[in-house]
Amino acid sequence: MTTGRRGRARSEQARHAILTATATLLAASGYEQLSVDRIATTAGVGKQTVYRWWPSKSAVIAECLLDGYVLSDLIEPAKSGDARSDVLSWLRALVDFLDDPKNAALFRALAAAASENREVSDRLYQRFSGPLHTSLVECLRAGVRTGRIRDDAPVRAVADVLIGAVLHRALAHIDIPLGTADGIVDALFSGIAVADREAHRSR
Amino acid sequence: MTTGRRGRARSEQARHAILTATATLLAASGYEQLSVDRIATTAGVGKQTVYRWWPSKSAVIAECLLDGYVLSDLIEPAKSGDARSDVLSWLRALVDFLDDPKNAALFRALAAAASENREVSDRLYQRFSGPLHTSLVECLRAGVRTGRIRDDAPVRAVADVLIGAVLHRALAHIDIPLGTADGIVDALFSGIAVADREAHRSR
Repeated sequence: MTTGRRGRARSEQARHAILTATATLLAASGYEQLSVDRIATTAGVGKQTVYRWWPSKSAVIAECLLDGYVLSDLIEPAKSGDARSDVLSWLRALVDFLDDPKNAALFRALAAAASENREVSDRLYQRFSGPLHTSLVECLRAGVRTGRIRDDAPVRAVADVLIGAVLHRALAHIDIPLGTADGIVDALFSGIAVADREAHRSR
Repeated sequence: MTTGRRGRARSEQARHAILTATATLLAASGYEQLSVDRIATTAGVGKQTVYRWWPSKSAVIAECLLDGYVLSDLIEPAKSGDARSDVLSWLRALVDFLDDPKNAALFRALAAAASENREVSDRLYQRFSGPLHTSLVECLRAGVRTGRIRDDAPVRAVADVLIGAVLHRALAHIDIPLGTADGIVDALFSGIAVADREAHRSR
């Protein structure tokens, strides 16, 4: 019994070391440079310990993401009360993140896994898009409460659209000139239509 | 020489019949129900003729999409001059299309292929997202010319965001309540911010 517990604790420690090492290596040198060898060395475990739990490097990375070892700080926009600037800061950070080809490659690998496999897709939703959607809706509702956002604003649609813009940026080639974070927030907050009132005035 | 030409014409005819049959079956009963057997029967060719050019049903479907046999009518928004209603009609049609699980499954299969393979991604971009982005930007610029959209509107960002919203809808589970086409267009055209002028007035 005691041995069993010690074994479990040791396993949990190795698992944590492996996931932490993966997150560190990922941040330092990106997806392409990552290998099970490097993960094992950095974690101070044998290669076979990694392979005992995960079949491949992408499986370790997926677990890393799903357990919140990486990216989790990009999920939660700040809540200063100024919804526009909170959304803008969050979107700028994500756009910066995805402008690095290493990160975009990782994101695309995840999207591919999610498109093919319902279980991966469910876990990614539970870990990322779900909480992110909730945070964005909360952030926008705070804007309604402070009188910055109109009462009848389609906040759910705006949260969807913001997540979609990020997804599109990640899946599109990085050599396509995309709209900036500032442009997206400008359109969503200020609207692109000429207000009826002004249109009438200018006639 | 004559035989060679006749052979080429026959091949081209069979190829066209196979792609047309695939598009017809796809529209009638969707991706899951499709099989190389059914494609061959509908096209009036032998199964081995299909396999001579394509290794699998998804390869036939990809070719179908890339050659404009399906979906091409969803790429081009109308150009009535009223950009808001043109964008809204286009987005409603795409949302309706994706609300059918058969179509969403097809779209996800394509997204998975594109995430994994740069060549597929390039061809999908050339066939779909590229022309669609161009059409949307043109549609929005027409709105600027007719005085419906403000001169300094970030039209490129809006086109990106619209494509992103469609992508998000396709990749997310259909049981997640997503913003409606009307909500998305409302946010982008009217903006969600309370105008400064009005905010001052209400103080």
